[in-house]
Amino acid sequence: MDWDVLLTPYKQAVEELKIKLKGIRDQYQLTSKHTPIEFVTGRVKPVSSILEKAKRKNIPLNRLEEDMQDLAGVRIMCQFVGDIDTIVELIKARTDFSIVEQRDYIKNKKRSGYRSYHMILKYPVQTIEGGEKNTLVELQIRTLAMNFWATIEHSLQYKYAGKIPDEIEQRLVKAAEAAFQLDEEMSKIRGEVQEAQKIMTKQQEASRRKP
Amino acid sequence: MDWDVLLTPYKQAVEELKIKLKGIRDQYQLTSKHTPIEFVTGRVKPVSSILEKAKRKNIPLNRLEEDMQDLAGVRIMCQFVGDIDTIVELIKARTDFSIVEQRDYIKNKKRSGYRSYHMILKYPVQTIEGGEKNTLVELQIRTLAMNFWATIEHSLQYKYAGKIPDEIEQRLVKAAEAAFQLDEEMSKIRGEVQEAQKIMTKQQEASRRKP
Amino acid sequence: MDWDVLLTPYKQAVEELKIKLKGIRDQYQLTSKHTPIEFVTGRVKPVSSILEKAKRKNIPLNRLEEDMQDLAGVRIMCQFVGDIDTIVELIKARTDFSIVEQRDYIKNKKRSGYRSYHMILKYPVQTIEGGEKNTLVELQIRTLAMNFWATIEHSLQYKYAGKIPDEIEQRLVKAAEAAFQLDEEMSKIRGEVQEAQKIMTKQQEASRRKP
Amino acid sequence: MDWDVLLTPYKQAVEELKIKLKGIRDQYQLTSKHTPIEFVTGRVKPVSSILEKAKRKNIPLNRLEEDMQDLAGVRIMCQFVGDIDTIVELIKARTDFSIVEQRDYIKNKKRSGYRSYHMILKYPVQTIEGGEKNTLVELQIRTLAMNFWATIEHSLQYKYAGKIPDEIEQRLVKAAEAAFQLDEEMSKIRGEVQEAQKIMTKQQEASRRKP
Repeated sequence: MDWDVLLTPYKQAVEELKIKLKGIRDQYQLTSKHTPIEFVTGRVKPVSSILEKAKRKNIPLNRLEEDMQDLAGVRIMCQFVGDIDTIVELIKARTDFSIVEQRDYIKNKKRSGYRSYHMILKYPVQTIEGGEKNTLVELQIRTLAMNFWATIEHSLQYKYAGKIPDEIEQRLVKAAEAAFQLDEEMSKIRGEVQEAQKIMTKQQEASRRKP
Repeated sequence: MDWDVLLTPYKQAVEELKIKLKGIRDQYQLTSKHTPIEFVTGRVKPVSSILEKAKRKNIPLNRLEEDMQDLAGVRIMCQFVGDIDTIVELIKARTDFSIVEQRDYIKNKKRSGYRSYHMILKYPVQTIEGGEKNTLVELQIRTLAMNFWATIEHSLQYKYAGKIPDEIEQRLVKAAEAAFQLDEEMSKIRGEVQEAQKIMTKQQEASRRKP
Repeated sequence: MDWDVLLTPYKQAVEELKIKLKGIRDQYQLTSKHTPIEFVTGRVKPVSSILEKAKRKNIPLNRLEEDMQDLAGVRIMCQFVGDIDTIVELIKARTDFSIVEQRDYIKNKKRSGYRSYHMILKYPVQTIEGGEKNTLVELQIRTLAMNFWATIEHSLQYKYAGKIPDEIEQRLVKAAEAAFQLDEEMSKIRGEVQEAQKIMTKQQEASRRKP
Repeated sequence: MDWDVLLTPYKQAVEELKIKLKGIRDQYQLTSKHTPIEFVTGRVKPVSSILEKAKRKNIPLNRLEEDMQDLAGVRIMCQFVGDIDTIVELIKARTDFSIVEQRDYIKNKKRSGYRSYHMILKYPVQTIEGGEKNTLVELQIRTLAMNFWATIEHSLQYKYAGKIPDEIEQRLVKAAEAAFQLDEEMSKIRGEVQEAQKIMTKQQEASRRKP
């Protein structure tokens, strides 16, 4: 298996998608609208993680490109839960790649407490042999609080090789609830801000209409 | 006022400090120790914000370099509240800049709910005229939860020109409490993890001592 | 004229094209073939240069997007003159943008001594309003020697506001000839290297065929 | 040998020096003076090249840090041969590192045709154990033409494992002469430009003195 040959198109897909999704941010900053994207990250799965996951999920190495959908991963972080829907709509409207699958772990959070919105994209990269090659890329969309929790859960999964002790798992569930609570409080602020803006706009319109 | 001439050394200080602080991360990743730095950002204060703050705080423009200590700003984000002390010690041990001032808004959080550890650094940059020029740089150290809250508070301060309506201010205080709660839960996980590691190490040592 | 609104899609096009063209390099480095791309740069034309050129060429500001084809510019540098053809073929084979125009200032060098291969690309960027927006981008392909000369000519054009004194113009022509000479010598090396490789391969084949 | 542990401080030194030397460029761009730095690159020597050189030069692996002075390498490219002296003076004036050795392969070019100015720097990096660690870094200063030639010579040395065939070596010498010729022509332009500026300044002064 020549990993560099296998993974170079995925590395390319990640780099292109990062630039493209950051571009959404730049466009929002030209408007007076709240930008739904806080920041964007991306990575190609390390070879050691690919091998570990292939073994665990029983994926033959000649089926990696079809059956391991997160060889390439891109992640969008946002401030408010409500931003996630906005981003999903923006992604659906694009014409430079297509959507293969969607999983909403926010409406249906995992037992561990994990929340995130996942999409599998089919993204074309150009090859020097001529012609396109399609790559599958997993896009994760989450708030900063979801991401904070997920980062820590991921490093514990790694440390304990997937077998997190019960006490720590229960702690993680409690922390996930605190993260959820933070998102709830933040959502109320977003609501208040939007409410306040509507009132202010109406007052301004009213005062303008006066002779 | 030639802003480019004034701010170029501060831009340089920010770039150098970002590279240096990211270097701490790279060194930790060589060890088996938890890295206390999640990520590092930096910026030079935009001219419009400098002018607004100078007016508000009554700072004459020829006193900016001495009296506005956040012309250059660098920020370190970490996972756990306990990481902040580790970072403060690392910063104090360095010989490539000195510390002018420290303010601990974690032990003494602001009324708004703001938590963060601030240090003012005196950082030397080299000039093409020969010789060093000292710059003041504000370093902020915070957890991801503190940063999440502070980002939103900052954009509201900006939106409402410093006069956030009472209802929203109260919402912000509640959100700050939720962020604090998240940090508390996370700290317990960190404690559990460290506790679990100690127990595992002792068991291993015991089993090795058996004949 | 809101320059940020006008130029943001062009900035996006430049960023995406830089990542895509650098990707060609990465793909070549996986093969044993010589990579035809040494490095890639890009820029959006500064507003002051746009205004100066619009005045000089009599382009109304509401016709900039159609009539000023180098608002966005991307440049590929290569080692050998022969690499330029390889790159042109790679560009033509791509399906993610189209070619609007080509000008070969290598076969037909300018009176000043300027040599370079120019293509005008029609490159689609995605907008947050939904749908694509086409941008024109000028792609320049040149050797390192052509680029060296062009960089210096450009800064002199700028210094003398387009009116370079005769003596300096004559010096520039002489320097262009020296740059051409360097490219010629380099081309011969490339030929020798390819020749040497063919001979070596034949000798190896011959020795393998012996019993 | 843990290569990551050995090379991480050198990687850090390269990153810091690149930011610092690029900063010189930014400072020049604030002045009306010609910037002597065109661009800056840097790299840590790949492990395969370290092993090959250690074998060839008979350096024991526990003496790499003292005896292989180009584990870390930084390179400054400039437009004119005359810029090299300016850069050397700027480097000597700095207080953030010291100079251990200098070799002038421009006044004393190598038999192969290689021209470049080399300095060995002693550069301190901060460690997480506390305290500084000194690293040796090789700084190369060259014109774009010198760099063009050296890039090609380097890839041929690599291809032929240090034993370049005679015909190609002779071609390289001829190409080095063409590169030298290009630098000579460019130097004359620089002289003309400086001469022209002096004349223009005098004429302006004369016209201002007239009543």
